[in-house]
Amino acid sequence: MHEFTLLYCFDLFGTCVFAISGALAAGQKRMDIFGAAALGTVTAVGGGSLRDILLNQNVFWIINPTYLYIAVIASMITYFAARKFSIPKKVLLLSDAIGLAVFTVIGVSKTLKFSDSFYVVIIMGIMTGVVGGMIRDILSNEVPLVLRKEIYATAALLGAAVYVAMYNSQIPQSLCIVAGAMITLVCRLAAIFFNWSLPIIRHS
Amino acid sequence: MHEFTLLYCFDLFGTCVFAISGALAAGQKRMDIFGAAALGTVTAVGGGSLRDILLNQNVFWIINPTYLYIAVIASMITYFAARKFSIPKKVLLLSDAIGLAVFTVIGVSKTLKFSDSFYVVIIMGIMTGVVGGMIRDILSNEVPLVLRKEIYATAALLGAAVYVAMYNSQIPQSLCIVAGAMITLVCRLAAIFFNWSLPIIRHS
Amino acid sequence: MHEFTLLYCFDLFGTCVFAISGALAAGQKRMDIFGAAALGTVTAVGGGSLRDILLNQNVFWIINPTYLYIAVIASMITYFAARKFSIPKKVLLLSDAIGLAVFTVIGVSKTLKFSDSFYVVIIMGIMTGVVGGMIRDILSNEVPLVLRKEIYATAALLGAAVYVAMYNSQIPQSLCIVAGAMITLVCRLAAIFFNWSLPIIRHS
Repeated sequence: MHEFTLLYCFDLFGTCVFAISGALAAGQKRMDIFGAAALGTVTAVGGGSLRDILLNQNVFWIINPTYLYIAVIASMITYFAARKFSIPKKVLLLSDAIGLAVFTVIGVSKTLKFSDSFYVVIIMGIMTGVVGGMIRDILSNEVPLVLRKEIYATAALLGAAVYVAMYNSQIPQSLCIVAGAMITLVCRLAAIFFNWSLPIIRHS
Repeated sequence: MHEFTLLYCFDLFGTCVFAISGALAAGQKRMDIFGAAALGTVTAVGGGSLRDILLNQNVFWIINPTYLYIAVIASMITYFAARKFSIPKKVLLLSDAIGLAVFTVIGVSKTLKFSDSFYVVIIMGIMTGVVGGMIRDILSNEVPLVLRKEIYATAALLGAAVYVAMYNSQIPQSLCIVAGAMITLVCRLAAIFFNWSLPIIRHS
Repeated sequence: MHEFTLLYCFDLFGTCVFAISGALAAGQKRMDIFGAAALGTVTAVGGGSLRDILLNQNVFWIINPTYLYIAVIASMITYFAARKFSIPKKVLLLSDAIGLAVFTVIGVSKTLKFSDSFYVVIIMGIMTGVVGGMIRDILSNEVPLVLRKEIYATAALLGAAVYVAMYNSQIPQSLCIVAGAMITLVCRLAAIFFNWSLPIIRHS
């Protein structure tokens, strides 16, 4: 039904890691197993759903429910693992960073078919990467990662921009995808581990 | 314009009770009459709107504004009644429970036409039932009922699963609808009156 | 690509003022330059995006990215201006009021093509005007203007109703547009400067 491409592998992988981050957030808030499955699923499919709605396309998980299966199974395994072993808090940030990197390049790839404005393409990439985690944070009553001082949306912006620039230079798309995702991931990991943030211009 | 079926009656009834719950929430927050009409309407049409958007269909209340009329009239009557008489707090929970039961089976029924994945159908049923009340609670600054410890989404899940199982066994759809709604309603009422919740596995 | 009509001018102007209000809100919360650009853009295109999604149309800024350019440029200029000069708090309320007035009549105009229910048309007008600012306030952790006691959605309601009544009396549409916007703007400004609110019926 679905051709088995690099992008599809990436997409299922991103679904899995975002579901893990959602289930970890649910565990921290002491939600029950259904809460974890729900929060994991919403985190995993939220960004892509908004992307498909804005592009006026059929929503991906209604066409292909594999995404839902993966999200629920990953959430449940994570929920039980988090009860058995103590999982360091950085794991949530790490899985969120991987999901951000993967979903940003997927958002860019899908939007390239519908718009030739690179500006629209980059915005849709950022949105696809950012929105799932934002819903997770709002529902679990945390300040959304994207609104904190550290580099977050900026990492998605850089990855998406590099993807688009490479794509525009006729570089094969699989290379653009890998490069874009790596750049977002590296920037975001650097922000987590070295506490990077953009300078804020002070009030004069 | 719209055939007068069991489902349509249910739908108008659910619209009415969800609008009541929204107007009661607005009254508790001392909003004015327009706030009550707005919160009642958003609660009543929120879940179904998201369902139609995800299914890439025309939104039901744009095609048939009867839903809007009913939501606004029910909200306003409730608003004035709540000013005249003191309405017990359980009435909000009760109207929310009825709305949850009715909209879950309507979500299942509509999605059955577009997807043959029972998993997608059940998720869409839960979402249709849950989202209107969630928007109401977020806008009136309450912790969403769906995120509290008591059984809530689980009641919708059980009702939707029974509906789908019966439907799959060639049982007439009107029976599936009534059975699914009753199961959701009974579970949810039991949760309200006996304070049921799912056991949470403690940290080891 | 896009005919240069009164409505299009209004739309670009509304995009600009709503982006200014979003960037000012970001500045008050001490977000960085990307936060200001993001909040300004979301404020400027949020209401119209929901309108197009509910009408099952292609989202306007995906078809015509000019809106995005204007929103980002206006946000950035505002961000730097707010750092250089001290901008009075009323400027945010003022730009929000202008955006509300402009987007309400645009919401009405676009919906008139898809629905002949004046009730649906008025609701869509209010929603187009109100939702962008609501997202801005939620993301910057303020109580949404629309939920406060002052007249807000009511101003949009009056403007939309006058537009529809005039349109129904065969008055030329450009006149309806200007009259509807002026009425919303005047009501809202009066509410800001004289602190108008609707009377609330007290508990008996």
